[in-house]
Amino acid sequence: MNPDVAFAIWSGERARRVESVLDEMLAPAGDSAQRLHEAMRYAVLGGGKRVRALLAYAGGELAAADPDVVDGAAAAVELIHAYSLVHDDLPCMDNDVLRRGKPTCHVAYSEPIALLAGDALQSLAFEALASRPMRDPSSQFALLARAAGARGMAGGQMIDLAAAGAQLELAELERMHRLKTGALIWAAVRLGAACGRPLTAGENEALDRYASAIGLGFQVVDDVLDVEGTAQSLGKTAGKDAVQRKSTYVSLSGLAAAKERIEALRAEARAALVAFGPVARRLLEITDWIAARRH
Amino acid sequence: MNPDVAFAIWSGERARRVESVLDEMLAPAGDSAQRLHEAMRYAVLGGGKRVRALLAYAGGELAAADPDVVDGAAAAVELIHAYSLVHDDLPCMDNDVLRRGKPTCHVAYSEPIALLAGDALQSLAFEALASRPMRDPSSQFALLARAAGARGMAGGQMIDLAAAGAQLELAELERMHRLKTGALIWAAVRLGAACGRPLTAGENEALDRYASAIGLGFQVVDDVLDVEGTAQSLGKTAGKDAVQRKSTYVSLSGLAAAKERIEALRAEARAALVAFGPVARRLLEITDWIAARRH
Repeated sequence: MNPDVAFAIWSGERARRVESVLDEMLAPAGDSAQRLHEAMRYAVLGGGKRVRALLAYAGGELAAADPDVVDGAAAAVELIHAYSLVHDDLPCMDNDVLRRGKPTCHVAYSEPIALLAGDALQSLAFEALASRPMRDPSSQFALLARAAGARGMAGGQMIDLAAAGAQLELAELERMHRLKTGALIWAAVRLGAACGRPLTAGENEALDRYASAIGLGFQVVDDVLDVEGTAQSLGKTAGKDAVQRKSTYVSLSGLAAAKERIEALRAEARAALVAFGPVARRLLEITDWIAARRH
Repeated sequence: MNPDVAFAIWSGERARRVESVLDEMLAPAGDSAQRLHEAMRYAVLGGGKRVRALLAYAGGELAAADPDVVDGAAAAVELIHAYSLVHDDLPCMDNDVLRRGKPTCHVAYSEPIALLAGDALQSLAFEALASRPMRDPSSQFALLARAAGARGMAGGQMIDLAAAGAQLELAELERMHRLKTGALIWAAVRLGAACGRPLTAGENEALDRYASAIGLGFQVVDDVLDVEGTAQSLGKTAGKDAVQRKSTYVSLSGLAAAKERIEALRAEARAALVAFGPVARRLLEITDWIAARRH
């Protein structure tokens, strides 16, 4: 079978899989907090590329993990991602009205409900991670908590916030990207792999290099798409980095250099996987898919 | 020694203890996300009665737990509590300006920073819980996540939100209180006890009854204090339930009936502890302290 087709089949199957895991975890309570459950489902289900879930499943395949066990980690990273989008879109943050081609959560449900929904989605992420047996669970919880928190995603958002309107140095921009987007992508790969056989120190180091390159690469692609994409293809407001005068890879180093950086990070990610052999196949495919994505 | 004095000494020592655990966990990064770390420290340190931490330590004593191990659970419940206060005070929620006698976090640091600080404090709570060895960690993480999430604290806040301006039935108010305040108080007792010896099924059931009674009782006391207290004694805006026309125990059943309910819940809580004997001492003392508190 054509490898691209095989990957499309695999990624489609896995995306539907995590969708159904999430759907089950987000079962409405049918009680007076029902609007909260509805808002949570609205923010999570029926959209998104599920990149983080795919990375968790692919990380799991690298370590011969049972996908039934990876389900918890895959759902957890998607829930953290979904909560961060809901809070990011709030009026006091990016004040965005369009996400995944739909009105943002606070537009659809009100600002206080969106705030609570984001909060409860973060809690649910940890519940999701706890829902499947893991080796050394405390380490995995700590890993996810750090990736989400002030030394990870939330810290990156703070740097982003502090930099609004100001010109960042490229090194500082990279640091922001590594925290804001990279930390959770890194966690997705690591948590997926942690569901399988123990890795050697060398393998762990190689996987870290992979996850770090892919995490940064994903965001550079995003910066390029914000310039080249349209609202229709992105499902969210395009060109908003420029409107908000945010520093991006493109604004700081130009489009051509940003695209070169994507290729360099792709090569770095691929190189880190060589030692694993065929079990790295899905991670390689995701790498190429991310580098080539158009939305 | 006079038992009141002994309790004051113990609770003072434990409150300082969790303060120092929290202080260590909230060490500033000294980087560009520093304002975020500052806001987190501002929201957590140097204030609060630490009721949830005390309940965790007291639950730990019930099960002969090492306080060094309980530190993680005690810090975790305080961090969840602190995050919920920061988000509760935001303009789109209660829009409050005074908390623990200081300007609220968003007044001191801005709304977006307060939003991120609350988010990062929730992450840190799970990191705190992961920081000490526990029996069956996944169960403890699931317990904390559920208590914080849509079927716990956040769900209670949603009911509160949905009821704004409307008259609740007493049963619905009680359900809201049990989620909004009770769930985390229950989790504090359970997580503390989980750090010690395994409890029997009967002991678990008794401890649940205790935690459930104390969780609701705490909130009824709060309702009474909102009517009888002053901003000075409370360190927060007094009388705001009436201003916001929120249903409270007092507004629905009157001051005398609310005080009777407190006494009934205190008796229920005390009765649940009888079977444990002297190791329940701290939990008993906390029960009396909560029932008698004036701020």
